[in-house]
Amino acid sequence: MNLISPRVLKGFRDILPDSERVRRALTDRLESAFRQFGYVPIDTPTLEYTEVLLGKGGGETDKQIFRFQDHGGRDVALRFDLTVPFARYMAAHLNELYTPFRRYHIGKAYRGENTQRGRYREFVQCDFDIVGVDSVSADADILLTVVEAFRAIGIERIELRVAHRGLFSRFLGHLGAGEQSAEVLRTVDKLRKVGVETTKNDLVALVGDAKAAQVVEFITAGGEYDEVIRRLEELAGGPGIDSDRVRRTIGAVVEAGAGKNIIYDPTITRGLDYYTGIVFETFLPELPDIGSVCSGGRYNDLASLYTKQELPGVGGSVGLDRLLAALEQLERTPEAGPAADVLVFCLDDSLVGWYHSLARTLRNSGLTCEVYPATRKLAQQFGYAEKKGVPLAVICGPDEHAEGRINCKDLRNRESFDAAGPDEAARMLRARLGAE
Amino acid sequence: MNLISPRVLKGFRDILPDSERVRRALTDRLESAFRQFGYVPIDTPTLEYTEVLLGKGGGETDKQIFRFQDHGGRDVALRFDLTVPFARYMAAHLNELYTPFRRYHIGKAYRGENTQRGRYREFVQCDFDIVGVDSVSADADILLTVVEAFRAIGIERIELRVAHRGLFSRFLGHLGAGEQSAEVLRTVDKLRKVGVETTKNDLVALVGDAKAAQVVEFITAGGEYDEVIRRLEELAGGPGIDSDRVRRTIGAVVEAGAGKNIIYDPTITRGLDYYTGIVFETFLPELPDIGSVCSGGRYNDLASLYTKQELPGVGGSVGLDRLLAALEQLERTPEAGPAADVLVFCLDDSLVGWYHSLARTLRNSGLTCEVYPATRKLAQQFGYAEKKGVPLAVICGPDEHAEGRINCKDLRNRESFDAAGPDEAARMLRARLGAE
Repeated sequence: MNLISPRVLKGFRDILPDSERVRRALTDRLESAFRQFGYVPIDTPTLEYTEVLLGKGGGETDKQIFRFQDHGGRDVALRFDLTVPFARYMAAHLNELYTPFRRYHIGKAYRGENTQRGRYREFVQCDFDIVGVDSVSADADILLTVVEAFRAIGIERIELRVAHRGLFSRFLGHLGAGEQSAEVLRTVDKLRKVGVETTKNDLVALVGDAKAAQVVEFITAGGEYDEVIRRLEELAGGPGIDSDRVRRTIGAVVEAGAGKNIIYDPTITRGLDYYTGIVFETFLPELPDIGSVCSGGRYNDLASLYTKQELPGVGGSVGLDRLLAALEQLERTPEAGPAADVLVFCLDDSLVGWYHSLARTLRNSGLTCEVYPATRKLAQQFGYAEKKGVPLAVICGPDEHAEGRINCKDLRNRESFDAAGPDEAARMLRARLGAE
Repeated sequence: MNLISPRVLKGFRDILPDSERVRRALTDRLESAFRQFGYVPIDTPTLEYTEVLLGKGGGETDKQIFRFQDHGGRDVALRFDLTVPFARYMAAHLNELYTPFRRYHIGKAYRGENTQRGRYREFVQCDFDIVGVDSVSADADILLTVVEAFRAIGIERIELRVAHRGLFSRFLGHLGAGEQSAEVLRTVDKLRKVGVETTKNDLVALVGDAKAAQVVEFITAGGEYDEVIRRLEELAGGPGIDSDRVRRTIGAVVEAGAGKNIIYDPTITRGLDYYTGIVFETFLPELPDIGSVCSGGRYNDLASLYTKQELPGVGGSVGLDRLLAALEQLERTPEAGPAADVLVFCLDDSLVGWYHSLARTLRNSGLTCEVYPATRKLAQQFGYAEKKGVPLAVICGPDEHAEGRINCKDLRNRESFDAAGPDEAARMLRARLGAE
């Protein structure tokens, strides 16, 4: 018979155990941070009606979407983010839920992206939002969640760069460039990638020399957040609800002890029309080149495609694959611990039942414990323990067993020690595990 | 603008927060049991080449598979189980992995099933296997894993019904019914659904009166496992490696302390040709009608479609949706705990920063704590806490704040108590949480 090649699709990946254990350690910590703030988890289908995902205008084929007809002739597609499904979800379940509603959602999404830029076609998103309320407190809550989520994964130093879309728009209106605001925002959004000079030239082409100079002044204002906001207010024609709102929001974050992480950065615009209030991106000062690892902002109506009920909200999103790549570069991936604390070697078939009985005692004492499942050469079993990173072993043959002696070994330093029975073995192994 | 209906596809579901929290509590406990035995997690793509999933003979359209052409013209499909992807995975990564290899995998799979029978088209599977070894110890290990996994989710009483496919086949050969063995196995497999009488009649039609009577004698043999095996050996023409193997396997499980859960049941055949050694199904005595909640067995070559390297293995699979339904019926779903321990009420906008600062202190003390994100009527905030099941509250306005007094409340019994500052509030709230 001809063998089938065990290949995977371009842009899709198998995850090997060591990587998967790190991924889980990472998502466990993120989830734990979200739960600390009272976010609850939800799930939505991976496959949806294309109309629901793309809207009615989405008729023209979007190359990035995995879309097909199912057996019932339905036009369906794999979700390409977690935001659109969340909007539909809120519209569908408004009567069963309560607002303000804060949820997190960690799940796979799919896009037929060009894989040459290191993008995957199947990727994991991690979104968190507070909807049904438009307030300083909710905005501050999301920013504090970002700080805490990174702290939970061992990253204390982040730069949370925040701005207010409304303040920028007001400035453009005041400048008499309101009609070009979409293009101006898009141009400024690219500043970090292309540099100030290119941005300046692009702006001159868009709005002329004088206005471009003012825009550059606006986006390059730096310093303490209240100083920057005061300066931007001047450029925008004076105080307003936008500047007041972002000042109070950042003030709350500072009062809650996360001031050292936060910067007002007028270049943050987030390209999407979707955002209406604060917008933010998160950078790792140790890895400036990797770009933002968590972005988001305030929107004034989440689910307007599906319901007339207004749902203002604020939220953020972590691209887990990019974050993992960053943590790998920093050699700061979360510690997943050993795959098992103890390996019970198999020296004789007649002892198989006893090995499993011993393992049970060890597990009941709190150790994770694996029984090597066949009588093979000792060297092979040692090699297995090493490949799997198991630190401790029990190595007992019929002689030791007949003498009532349990031979234990610390595989990290090759020290051996004997225990008089299963309970003592459990105690000694636990002490040894904690000791290293 | 016309609204789009926020509907989901037939057979697909949104999961509401309370359900999702229970699902996660359930999978957390299962994973914890797997980890106790040294299983490591893996992941594979949701979307694969159709050829890889269905084999080369899978050209005829299988109605149950979600299959389509992607933008690159590839014939692709959503995985319909976790076994086939695991086989491909092992073939693809043999050089990077070690054997024996024990993995678990919890993930979604997709089938276009008839939804009228309460089946979902998107469902969660939970598989665990030990491959690369053919031994009593591995077989016993899988059976012990099943017992421990159910114990971890609070189900001590399970019936793990075990048989050996080889012993049944040998019996049929001895009887002179070897040629009809596939049909006989399929008939016997249905016994639990259709009853002994119907099975008997079907067997008579298949192999005639005399042989049918012997088959019925074989499959109705009951009693202690060693007694049943001895009886079956007689019917099969004497002792053999099959009966010896299953006797030693069950013996090891008994020695490891899980004897009360295990029954030799000759009617367990598992329809699939795939299995070659022990086979098992798991029933809940309190819910006999729900059928098996965890099934599996030994196969002699996992990945023969993709590699010439033989990979014998043994494994089991839990259908998570069916298990959840069973636990709901038993009112024994795992306890997910409150969505947050403490709700900090919002009584005044000027205190937003302080509320978040207090919440941070409470979180640092180990409490999960949510800040109500807007100044709304007290009744509304109480209603929210109740809907979300939050047991404790901090209710402070400007007056209390000015007096340096933190008013706490146990929402379960409406008792109030004051703390002199954030640290004392944390201590009192924690004590209160533990007290109930």
